[in-house]
Amino acid sequence: MAIVLGENRYGKAENRVFRITRHGDTHEILDLNVSVQLMGDFADTHLTGDNAKVLPTDTQKNAVFALSHQLGPLEPEAFGVALARHFIGTQPAVSGVEVRLDLFPWHRIECRGTPHPRAFRRDGSHVRVATVRASRNGADLRTWITSGLEKLVVLKTGDSAFKGYPRDRYTTLQETDDRILATEVSARWRWSESDPAKLEGVDWAASHRAAMDTLLQTYAEHHSLSLQQTLYAMGKSMLEAQTGFAAVRLSLPNKHHFVVDLSPFGQRNAAEVHIAADRPYGFIEAVVQRDDAPPPPATWPTW
Amino acid sequence: MAIVLGENRYGKAENRVFRITRHGDTHEILDLNVSVQLMGDFADTHLTGDNAKVLPTDTQKNAVFALSHQLGPLEPEAFGVALARHFIGTQPAVSGVEVRLDLFPWHRIECRGTPHPRAFRRDGSHVRVATVRASRNGADLRTWITSGLEKLVVLKTGDSAFKGYPRDRYTTLQETDDRILATEVSARWRWSESDPAKLEGVDWAASHRAAMDTLLQTYAEHHSLSLQQTLYAMGKSMLEAQTGFAAVRLSLPNKHHFVVDLSPFGQRNAAEVHIAADRPYGFIEAVVQRDDAPPPPATWPTW
Amino acid sequence: MAIVLGENRYGKAENRVFRITRHGDTHEILDLNVSVQLMGDFADTHLTGDNAKVLPTDTQKNAVFALSHQLGPLEPEAFGVALARHFIGTQPAVSGVEVRLDLFPWHRIECRGTPHPRAFRRDGSHVRVATVRASRNGADLRTWITSGLEKLVVLKTGDSAFKGYPRDRYTTLQETDDRILATEVSARWRWSESDPAKLEGVDWAASHRAAMDTLLQTYAEHHSLSLQQTLYAMGKSMLEAQTGFAAVRLSLPNKHHFVVDLSPFGQRNAAEVHIAADRPYGFIEAVVQRDDAPPPPATWPTW
Amino acid sequence: MAIVLGENRYGKAENRVFRITRHGDTHEILDLNVSVQLMGDFADTHLTGDNAKVLPTDTQKNAVFALSHQLGPLEPEAFGVALARHFIGTQPAVSGVEVRLDLFPWHRIECRGTPHPRAFRRDGSHVRVATVRASRNGADLRTWITSGLEKLVVLKTGDSAFKGYPRDRYTTLQETDDRILATEVSARWRWSESDPAKLEGVDWAASHRAAMDTLLQTYAEHHSLSLQQTLYAMGKSMLEAQTGFAAVRLSLPNKHHFVVDLSPFGQRNAAEVHIAADRPYGFIEAVVQRDDAPPPPATWPTW
Repeated sequence: MAIVLGENRYGKAENRVFRITRHGDTHEILDLNVSVQLMGDFADTHLTGDNAKVLPTDTQKNAVFALSHQLGPLEPEAFGVALARHFIGTQPAVSGVEVRLDLFPWHRIECRGTPHPRAFRRDGSHVRVATVRASRNGADLRTWITSGLEKLVVLKTGDSAFKGYPRDRYTTLQETDDRILATEVSARWRWSESDPAKLEGVDWAASHRAAMDTLLQTYAEHHSLSLQQTLYAMGKSMLEAQTGFAAVRLSLPNKHHFVVDLSPFGQRNAAEVHIAADRPYGFIEAVVQRDDAPPPPATWPTW
Repeated sequence: MAIVLGENRYGKAENRVFRITRHGDTHEILDLNVSVQLMGDFADTHLTGDNAKVLPTDTQKNAVFALSHQLGPLEPEAFGVALARHFIGTQPAVSGVEVRLDLFPWHRIECRGTPHPRAFRRDGSHVRVATVRASRNGADLRTWITSGLEKLVVLKTGDSAFKGYPRDRYTTLQETDDRILATEVSARWRWSESDPAKLEGVDWAASHRAAMDTLLQTYAEHHSLSLQQTLYAMGKSMLEAQTGFAAVRLSLPNKHHFVVDLSPFGQRNAAEVHIAADRPYGFIEAVVQRDDAPPPPATWPTW
Repeated sequence: MAIVLGENRYGKAENRVFRITRHGDTHEILDLNVSVQLMGDFADTHLTGDNAKVLPTDTQKNAVFALSHQLGPLEPEAFGVALARHFIGTQPAVSGVEVRLDLFPWHRIECRGTPHPRAFRRDGSHVRVATVRASRNGADLRTWITSGLEKLVVLKTGDSAFKGYPRDRYTTLQETDDRILATEVSARWRWSESDPAKLEGVDWAASHRAAMDTLLQTYAEHHSLSLQQTLYAMGKSMLEAQTGFAAVRLSLPNKHHFVVDLSPFGQRNAAEVHIAADRPYGFIEAVVQRDDAPPPPATWPTW
Repeated sequence: MAIVLGENRYGKAENRVFRITRHGDTHEILDLNVSVQLMGDFADTHLTGDNAKVLPTDTQKNAVFALSHQLGPLEPEAFGVALARHFIGTQPAVSGVEVRLDLFPWHRIECRGTPHPRAFRRDGSHVRVATVRASRNGADLRTWITSGLEKLVVLKTGDSAFKGYPRDRYTTLQETDDRILATEVSARWRWSESDPAKLEGVDWAASHRAAMDTLLQTYAEHHSLSLQQTLYAMGKSMLEAQTGFAAVRLSLPNKHHFVVDLSPFGQRNAAEVHIAADRPYGFIEAVVQRDDAPPPPATWPTW
């Protein structure tokens, strides 16, 4: 009954790459947090401390910044593919790469109605994310890409009910036809295509804007009988709008807002004044997918 | 050399009040975090445990929610004054009140270009804040109000230099004519008027929007020779625009973005690729004020 | 190419259960954060909003507190099994349960060398964690249990080298025979036995203490040629010491401490003064396992 | 009504200094977070951008690390005095300095009962803090020192009542003879002596250990009629034990633990099972001082 090395990976996390692209006096910016993880033939360093195959994480950091300079202001998905190609292509020991990229959005500051060419304010409403997983396929690179967003907080004050649920001895919840439905959206959409050459024409930024718009609009207009139903409607509308997506995964905490009981003070609170609660909270997760969606690679952990 | 009780206060912090106001099918929302602190004749509870003068913090919480219901969707400054008036007016032991209010801004979700009447997304770009300090003045209430904002992250890619500074044996910094200038703005502006009756007509929301616009525009358009100079310009423009403000206090961390040295890789980085640093960071604080500004009350904390 | 529901689950997260057990004037405490996730036949609520099978998360919360009262101060692993058994046993729609439990450790306050019977201080050095995954197996319950810990920060000032690594065009790192090795340990150990009846005699607390001691001692005494080698040594020693473990997973950020270059000031810093860096950081993850370890269930996400 | 510059200061915050002191094979470590703020004649940079008096914050950072190397492993209070002396003594424009120092405590890892000479684990139970405020007094330096601690979480399961409080229309709280009393202690103690020469013999570490022990023991043994009374008892016992302290300031959030109502499920919960709440929370602050304590300097901020 020997003890052996199982799944393993390593890399440099949270490289904070900030890029300026100058078009004369007008500047564009790109603000990324890039994390690299390498998989491959790394048994030696674990078992004996022989580092002959271990590209230092410091070198990985240098490569992230140098390649950003060489390649220019790529979209996160494209930069992730380029980084994966670099590490797989130059390190024989590396057979798989995972790159996680967070993009922090910024807006130009408006001065008398005109966007300023060189001054920006951060848009704290969400973080755009992408993950690229790559593996060698003989001489070829195959890539599995997810795009997504995090920290998008939404709330609706109507069109949300919850009733018809089973009751057991621990059930005290009252049915409701009208409750606040609030959540902080984490969404990932997985692209079907794994041949990076076929994805070169994708306008990643436009697709992301459209996906977020679809998600928000469906959330806003859906008459919700449960947060699960709203989740499914959001994912379904995103798949219908963008044929390149194989699946959408949504993770939705139910951020409870409770109507405050003011009857001890002789006041009738018609669902006007609520208390926003912290913990505990409901938590709903599901994948909405095409029935012929290719499975994601059996990586670790499964997305 | 006896041991005695010094400055003291107590209250209920972080009451998360969420209000809906319904105009038919169109709803308005108001999302507040309200903290109350009471000052007064509380020696007994400290010295003997006699609580006869200690209004429970649980009661304070109830009052915050009940008064929000009674008073409707007041602006933070007005709600703070009302809460202060309530506690001073009903509790003989209370001679001073401090109310801190955070307002979390939300936007309506846009659906095909139309703002939705009942669906919202949180604007994470800043938090609006207000503080009301009140004390009895005979039968009258006097209030010192500050308005402000926090967590407003801004960055400019040009029009920022830093040079001409003194050098000592520990100085290695290079002078620069062109650096990224980024900060997370915390701003407070103190109102001159301390008679709450004379402030009843103030449009707090409009004043706040205008103050933030002035701050942002000055930051964007200022040709900066130091973050201190930009700070002063921001404060000065806000005082010039709004005569009700006695003083502006700004706290500005210098969020460093360093040009990455790519010369070891044969690359010339013309201030395109930067690394966004975490710690340490510069920190600049100053008050810009009218020379005849009345001093704020000698409140606590003093150390 | 229809759109369908994929993997899904839901539950109540972060129920903060705090228990007192009184033995006369001496009290024991148990401080838990319990999160429940249910898997099963929940297509209806997603597709039509029919909630007939959706036990409310509010009910789940009530069950967590009520069962804690009924069952007494169980160890996290045992309480997780009991909760899983409850939800699977009483809800026909539920076929799988995942319970995550965080235990916050406390110590008694010492007064003149004697532990106080009713006063405690929190031990912030780590959080003990457990995860129970359960599924129906005909009439039987099968459970896969992991125990572990998080937020254990360790550092060694010697016995750590890193050299012999490959160099490419982006490598600037210097080899070292002597560096600070610091990390924040996240560890999980998976138990081989999935029949809960056979685990009833386990002393979970004693096993946890022993596992943490083994982990710390191996970390302290290992002469490290790489963080990977130290990771493997830690996992191996834990498996050798406790035959009930099938595998150990360790996630180790490399918390870099860089020697500060003081040569511009004429000072020779012999690795005395360092700067503790925030980002980026190395990140090392691996599983150390028995070669005959049964695989974990194909759940979502694979642990 | 001119606009003028008011109070202002600047510096480098959060310099993460980590020191090793080697005694042969046995190492001592010192882990500090050091923030420097300078006050003085800085009107020019604010008003015109002339930086001739503005020692760069980058230089301040260099000085912190270089002086740590020169001076060796000083206690936080002593290192703060040395840094203040350096900046006041070498920069004519500087008339005041504030240094804030956080010390993160570590313990040696125990291996078979023996503390390891070079391996450590972080003690997350609290952070030790110190603040040194210094000003020129003619040719002399005067320093006002506070020592303290933060993030010390304590809880008692008995000997705590709360009753006899006033009731108004918003009071619903029940009186209790027996409640959990939990808080996260932030404490500061101010030293009377402002001549740094007279403080040179102080054993700061021993004083800190003793102060924390006194605080914890008083908290544990006090029969509490209110958190205010416990606060006062803690401060008083600290002043009685250490004659060098002029005053103690304590900030104590009341971390509420509510007894869960299990009566809907037919269970009688005799204050065994509680829910630990997040927000809102009570918040109690007070200073306990000697009646002849010299006042602290009229420093900033005042609002």
